[in-house]
Amino acid sequence: MKDFFNVTPLAKVFEYIRTFPVVASETIPIVKATGRVLAQDIRSDEDVPGFSRSTMDGYAVCAASTFGASEGNPAYLTLDGVIPMGENPSTGIVPGNAIRISTGGMLPNGADSVVMMEYATEIDETTLEIHKSIAPGANMITKGEDVQQGQSLLSAGTKLRPQEIGLLAALGIEQVAVYKKPVVGIISTGDEIVPIQNTPGLAQVRDINSYSISSQVVQAGGIALSFGIIKDNYDALIETYRQALQKTDMLTISGGSSVGTRDLTIEVLKSLNDSKILVHGIPISPGKPTILARVGNKPVWGLPGHVTSAMVVFDRVVRPFIAHAAGINTDKKSHTRLISAKISRNIASAQGRTDFVRVKLRQSDDGLWAEPVLGKSGLINTMVQADGLVEIDMNTEGLDKGTAVSVIPF
Amino acid sequence: MKDFFNVTPLAKVFEYIRTFPVVASETIPIVKATGRVLAQDIRSDEDVPGFSRSTMDGYAVCAASTFGASEGNPAYLTLDGVIPMGENPSTGIVPGNAIRISTGGMLPNGADSVVMMEYATEIDETTLEIHKSIAPGANMITKGEDVQQGQSLLSAGTKLRPQEIGLLAALGIEQVAVYKKPVVGIISTGDEIVPIQNTPGLAQVRDINSYSISSQVVQAGGIALSFGIIKDNYDALIETYRQALQKTDMLTISGGSSVGTRDLTIEVLKSLNDSKILVHGIPISPGKPTILARVGNKPVWGLPGHVTSAMVVFDRVVRPFIAHAAGINTDKKSHTRLISAKISRNIASAQGRTDFVRVKLRQSDDGLWAEPVLGKSGLINTMVQADGLVEIDMNTEGLDKGTAVSVIPF
Repeated sequence: MKDFFNVTPLAKVFEYIRTFPVVASETIPIVKATGRVLAQDIRSDEDVPGFSRSTMDGYAVCAASTFGASEGNPAYLTLDGVIPMGENPSTGIVPGNAIRISTGGMLPNGADSVVMMEYATEIDETTLEIHKSIAPGANMITKGEDVQQGQSLLSAGTKLRPQEIGLLAALGIEQVAVYKKPVVGIISTGDEIVPIQNTPGLAQVRDINSYSISSQVVQAGGIALSFGIIKDNYDALIETYRQALQKTDMLTISGGSSVGTRDLTIEVLKSLNDSKILVHGIPISPGKPTILARVGNKPVWGLPGHVTSAMVVFDRVVRPFIAHAAGINTDKKSHTRLISAKISRNIASAQGRTDFVRVKLRQSDDGLWAEPVLGKSGLINTMVQADGLVEIDMNTEGLDKGTAVSVIPF
Repeated sequence: MKDFFNVTPLAKVFEYIRTFPVVASETIPIVKATGRVLAQDIRSDEDVPGFSRSTMDGYAVCAASTFGASEGNPAYLTLDGVIPMGENPSTGIVPGNAIRISTGGMLPNGADSVVMMEYATEIDETTLEIHKSIAPGANMITKGEDVQQGQSLLSAGTKLRPQEIGLLAALGIEQVAVYKKPVVGIISTGDEIVPIQNTPGLAQVRDINSYSISSQVVQAGGIALSFGIIKDNYDALIETYRQALQKTDMLTISGGSSVGTRDLTIEVLKSLNDSKILVHGIPISPGKPTILARVGNKPVWGLPGHVTSAMVVFDRVVRPFIAHAAGINTDKKSHTRLISAKISRNIASAQGRTDFVRVKLRQSDDGLWAEPVLGKSGLINTMVQADGLVEIDMNTEGLDKGTAVSVIPF
């Protein structure tokens, strides 16, 4: 295994992530911001809500007026009208009085709680019977209880979910600064590769990688820009790399699984201005022949030619670089993506190498099982059958049937 | 709890899903189809690959020529040139011969395996020394091994991931039929609600729901169409509902948490042509006052006015209806979204009611913990702090600290 001498361990590859820049930001309406990454911190200029509100249909009261009230010993209060929704109540409350209020209505001055409709009976137009004692603060939200003026709410790097969009709306923020989507260039190489529109001749295959990798870029929150299929030719490659680097934030080149093509990729990368090969081989399977170069301040990837190897390397290695470029705070929440299951059969794995095993999930009476998908790494259909990957780390010699595993879902 | 008499259990609500139609389909390029839902079955017209290929750099041979070969006792073969990439090999192989081949190259006639470069040494231009015995089929993919002509590959209802896009590319399918995105109309009601651009007066609040629910629609794979804020007024509501129903596949109305507004929503829904109230109240918390009507063949939802209640009902109740409308095969893979954790403190829950508890995930040395987020259901900030929901089913009386739970991630 002579290739293994100069490989870069995965953890070391990830140390390069923060050496690359984050893309610029742009300001967009919040209605278009779902899934985008916040590029500014959000602090509130005001209290939310701006007034104390009822959370129930009922009666605004001073809680003290209800103390001791029960079914057998109700309290009697003076009913003093209705608070119209959306209007500032004109009358206040004094002990012994109640005003009818709807959910969301503004509490009148002097009121410190709301009795739910279910626990009150209107005896006549001015008399209210209350069957339950309530505490101050009951069935209401106080001014600033959701958000206080000056409170720090969201930080740059947060991916915006519906609740963050709702919070921005609550603060009256219509437009927000988000990071642009990183543009990732995709180049397929190989003399045997033909456009998918063509019927491949004998010995030729269609260009799957341009499509599967473009789709992965989109899924990772980037913009995919495909530069087509380039023959294994120094001049053609260097010209395309140069053009692609001008238009993109990151570049992936796939197809060079053979030693000759890999050597050519390295040669072309080295001859670009201000370039440095950072990684040439990673002890992972699939994906050993992966290359990472820095050209100017941009990462350029040489991905394996096998379609499934390229996809696995993209998902496990390239994607964190895209997340960083996209401005995502990558410290947080990666655990939320893992699914607990048990492996359905013994799996061998070499020490010194991180293995990524494609698995299918199967729910059974005795739990969730991860079934390894058999098949060679050139077979796209094995990825179609898979629900995710199980990582076997480099210090583990394989997994016994029934071992608990964390599945990384696709 | 008088409202509970006529509620519809959640399982019964879900039985209505399949009584609603699926949207129409459209044909789009596969480069735009990531995340879309396939509206056709996919079968292969051809074998993939269309010829037997090497998966390694090495030498195409008859495996029998290597039998018994080892480091101490190598086999010697006649080296008969190189197979150029992407070309049909002009020479075949006979036992005792070998031809140099690169990864992805086409195997010549007569070859049934590939010896990896690492296990062979070129002694001179015509002599190859082989140090390892290999089996027929080694280091190659045979014609049709990925996909066989006539094989059923994908079925309508499949959400397209990068690997399905790759498979379509492998088959030369550039355009594919997918279901349109369902258009979901969003109406906010309430006399106290003002547009987010406005500074709310005293007793007024901004229209959060239009934004949080629109964002949820987008996240669920739909198109959100907002019809703004409508006052609690019969004529205004019925006119807006009619217009909205013409332009959408589904309608959500939020804001009516007070009994008066809910009664008005019901009254307006009943007076629309060909309408039927299917559900008026669901025994869930938050979200009890949820309404589902059928108007023509479209679902119309009355969602709670509290922003977090509306979001939880959308996620847990409305979303499966959108998934169905979007053509997703909802039988499959729902388990893949759940995260195993332990609840961090005792939680009370009433029997006869399904509770959805907002939780924050915290990774600790002793595993992943789900920490309930405290706060009233009107507070959007509680949703921002939450990573997901824990469902406590109607037959469970609460959870003890340390109980294993499945977290539904946001």
